[in-house]
Amino acid sequence: MLERARTLDAGDPLREFRDRFDVAEGVIYLDGNSLGALPKATPDRLEEVVLGEWGQGLIRSWNSADWITLPQRVGAKIAPLVGAQPHEVIACDSTSVNLFKLISAALAMRPGRKVVLSEPGNFPTDLYMIAGLEQQGLAERRLAPREAMADAIDENVALLMLTHVHYKTGAIFDMAALTEAAHARGALVLWDLSHSGGALPVDLNACNADFAVGCGYKYFNGGPGAPGYLFVAERHQIEVQQPLTGWMGHAAPFAFSDDYAPALGVDRMLCGTPPILGLAALEVGVDLIAEIGVERLYAKSQQLSEFFRQCVSEHGIELEIVSPTDPARRGSQLSFRHPEAYAICQALIARGVIGDFRDPDILRLGFAPAYLRFEDIAEAARHLTEVLETGEWQRDEFRERAAVT
Amino acid sequence: MLERARTLDAGDPLREFRDRFDVAEGVIYLDGNSLGALPKATPDRLEEVVLGEWGQGLIRSWNSADWITLPQRVGAKIAPLVGAQPHEVIACDSTSVNLFKLISAALAMRPGRKVVLSEPGNFPTDLYMIAGLEQQGLAERRLAPREAMADAIDENVALLMLTHVHYKTGAIFDMAALTEAAHARGALVLWDLSHSGGALPVDLNACNADFAVGCGYKYFNGGPGAPGYLFVAERHQIEVQQPLTGWMGHAAPFAFSDDYAPALGVDRMLCGTPPILGLAALEVGVDLIAEIGVERLYAKSQQLSEFFRQCVSEHGIELEIVSPTDPARRGSQLSFRHPEAYAICQALIARGVIGDFRDPDILRLGFAPAYLRFEDIAEAARHLTEVLETGEWQRDEFRERAAVT
Repeated sequence: MLERARTLDAGDPLREFRDRFDVAEGVIYLDGNSLGALPKATPDRLEEVVLGEWGQGLIRSWNSADWITLPQRVGAKIAPLVGAQPHEVIACDSTSVNLFKLISAALAMRPGRKVVLSEPGNFPTDLYMIAGLEQQGLAERRLAPREAMADAIDENVALLMLTHVHYKTGAIFDMAALTEAAHARGALVLWDLSHSGGALPVDLNACNADFAVGCGYKYFNGGPGAPGYLFVAERHQIEVQQPLTGWMGHAAPFAFSDDYAPALGVDRMLCGTPPILGLAALEVGVDLIAEIGVERLYAKSQQLSEFFRQCVSEHGIELEIVSPTDPARRGSQLSFRHPEAYAICQALIARGVIGDFRDPDILRLGFAPAYLRFEDIAEAARHLTEVLETGEWQRDEFRERAAVT
Repeated sequence: MLERARTLDAGDPLREFRDRFDVAEGVIYLDGNSLGALPKATPDRLEEVVLGEWGQGLIRSWNSADWITLPQRVGAKIAPLVGAQPHEVIACDSTSVNLFKLISAALAMRPGRKVVLSEPGNFPTDLYMIAGLEQQGLAERRLAPREAMADAIDENVALLMLTHVHYKTGAIFDMAALTEAAHARGALVLWDLSHSGGALPVDLNACNADFAVGCGYKYFNGGPGAPGYLFVAERHQIEVQQPLTGWMGHAAPFAFSDDYAPALGVDRMLCGTPPILGLAALEVGVDLIAEIGVERLYAKSQQLSEFFRQCVSEHGIELEIVSPTDPARRGSQLSFRHPEAYAICQALIARGVIGDFRDPDILRLGFAPAYLRFEDIAEAARHLTEVLETGEWQRDEFRERAAVT
């Protein structure tokens, strides 16, 4: 298998890009869907921002280094990767905070409707962000399984809020069909692109999406806790309002007036002072992903995950797969169910194969194709096989839960 | 004056700390109240976080480098500097977002009351953050001038929200008296410490304060757009709820349940994934300020600002001062009113003396004492005198407004 992997690597049109990442030593990293790897250009860019722009430029850098438009600049670079126009995307705050802005915005645009519809088992923060609005009496949460989703959209639904690629299974929702179904019943749609953006082609405008959010620290390689991004379709940019009405979303932040007046367009989605270090690191990651191109990335990630399945199968290992087996119906990951998934994941990590565990019984392996080789995949499959065959996951040290799993 | 300044510098107990900052070349920096200077330890710490913890540690660093508790750790370090207990402060999000959490929390704790009372001319984002809640029908803004503030607190006021040290004038509110007045009428109190924290001694608990927010990028030298921090008095930590109910504020974030359950204590004030680069830089700044001590810092800043006034006065310059002339009644800044404040500020910047302008007519000079020398102050006073006497501020180039003023 290793030989076949090396042949595949030799023919891989993306093989040169691995060298653009600071790949950790002794590690096969199958968790780029949780925290993307470090681009080699990031430390230099951060040094420039810290020593030059902050240290020497000081407050002047808001103008001279154009810090003030960094949220728009990074947003505009993300936009073509998710099928949006440059002025429809802005990078800011966390994904969770951005969810709050857009859920609130949608509720305000559909007076008389309170229901935010999602699916059970959606990524927790998506579901949780409805809770605060429920407590305030502004929203009502409704959950429907995905096969019954379209039928669950009725005249009480203000917003259909779904994650495009499921964090646990990698299953892809049909963005076009569900958006159309929601619109047919007068509801708006918010897509969470956390596991799609930078991983696979997304076309928000072709699907007529209303809103979207996404994550900066997964496939965009923006670093731990990188700012998120959000999308507001052009047609809503006059009407849309959100409750986090901070000074950076004001029409004239430096007029220092007492009264709030929203900025034009997507700028009104800003709230506080932009996090410059985080945005600068994110910009490097986005630039690199844009250079490679999401079509090529997705094609390779499908090959990687299919190759992994072949390898495991040839080793004679049977694992219950919870991801769609058709690679066109899943994102850049494979997830397997096993009652001892946590311990197996820890045993793999001890061997330098880093995937992650998702409660209660999921081993999740991400195939971030910008820096992974087929050789890594063959080796990861061998390690998984050995861990299962030797039963080394049964050691006590692999069963003790860490703070972050 | 220069000689007197040098004598003062020689006797300054904080003189050695200037060397702990990467002081910009050719600059006298009187804007540390807007963006604090770069501590020399910050670039090394960031390199460690980026190359080591992110690049090599990857996802494992949430546990191994203890990223997951960084908000609590930085909060606990800020706590003693603002008169709080370690578990009452947490570092997260922006000041604006934190204002939203705590205004909302206060409104929920005072059902039947909707008024958020503040003063006209408070820092814009403080006032603006009420606007979103007003649009949602949850809040009602009331503004009263500071001399009439106590009388404006009635049984409709849920929250008195004031900035301890005024961003424009530097005037200090009497935290103890106003908190008491609010409590006497059943209202809660939220103090914005953006211009106090790290600049002067604050004693939230001695004043019986309920809530507070503060800024990481001013006197704490956390870098551009650094995360903010917030305080919830221990007595409210069981009852308090806030609407940004993200996964990091959940009681068990990694259980991935569908239903939100708030974490214990101040942790429930978290929302999204913590911004690690920003928090790591902030920690360095907070450590340094804690090492110097806010009492010593405030004593020196009062000396610096008084010395500046003496120098200007000895140069024969008359400027309308809008800051309190009693140094005990102002923060670490002096503000002057002049119809051409913008152009004067720009002319000073061209000479390397960086202060800032606040619309419409305020020249604001900050005296961050950790890295300023009395010699800098004497020189700044000389430059201001020359700018005014020569009229060089009248040049066209100094009148053109930049994006950020």
